[in-house]
Amino acid sequence: MADITVTNIDEALWHTHTPEEIAAGASQDLRYCFLVDKALQNSHGLSLGCLILPAGAELPPHTHQPQEAYFIKKGTGQLHLPDGTKRDVRENDAVYIPENERHGLVNTSDEPLELIWIFPTDSFADVTYHYEDSASQSD
Amino acid sequence: MADITVTNIDEALWHTHTPEEIAAGASQDLRYCFLVDKALQNSHGLSLGCLILPAGAELPPHTHQPQEAYFIKKGTGQLHLPDGTKRDVRENDAVYIPENERHGLVNTSDEPLELIWIFPTDSFADVTYHYEDSASQSD
Repeated sequence: MADITVTNIDEALWHTHTPEEIAAGASQDLRYCFLVDKALQNSHGLSLGCLILPAGAELPPHTHQPQEAYFIKKGTGQLHLPDGTKRDVRENDAVYIPENERHGLVNTSDEPLELIWIFPTDSFADVTYHYEDSASQSD
Repeated sequence: MADITVTNIDEALWHTHTPEEIAAGASQDLRYCFLVDKALQNSHGLSLGCLILPAGAELPPHTHQPQEAYFIKKGTGQLHLPDGTKRDVRENDAVYIPENERHGLVNTSDEPLELIWIFPTDSFADVTYHYEDSASQSD
């Protein structure tokens, strides 16, 4: 029987991308933590975590199979859209990203941009990121 | 083709429970808005919204079939647990609630308690709430 669990951002384990992920197109400037994830607790069907982009940092344009939602918790930035344009996002914005849709995010401000990401998956590990500018794209 | 959509809390349409829902056990003190929902945009597989409990207000203990996550965006309160006890929750807590598990929330502070709720459903309308203290429970 699964339990109700509570995980606070301030007590979570924070990660940065590995050299291998950075070589595949991920940003070296991001920090992220898992909050609800099968890797943390006996959960399934939802996974979420927190991502912090420092001032000027970018989550490069990418795609993944599952749909995703963002909740912008703090800061302002610009969201990469599928057509190559960008649009502003700000605190208290909820973003819905359909399956396989190109997206990304740039922190255009002088303050950190913090968001909650949400997938309808058991785990973040179930989501494969494809960065469009990565060397591996040419394989 | 579904689009990427952005909905801000400050521009969302806010709701209160209907007299029928209150008769079925819902609180008359809550305000909520939908942020990602099939009723709002061409989305599916994830639905989320914002709930505000004023000081002293309660989301009474209840169950529903799907699992759910909360992200506590502001304030402090106490979470009703399946065994009848409560535990403290606070800003930046992520809560995972397994399927059909009893839960609820009380704002024990003097400030509003604000949270984002998340379901792995197309819409909030797909979730049927069962309040344990409602008159309809005796049907």
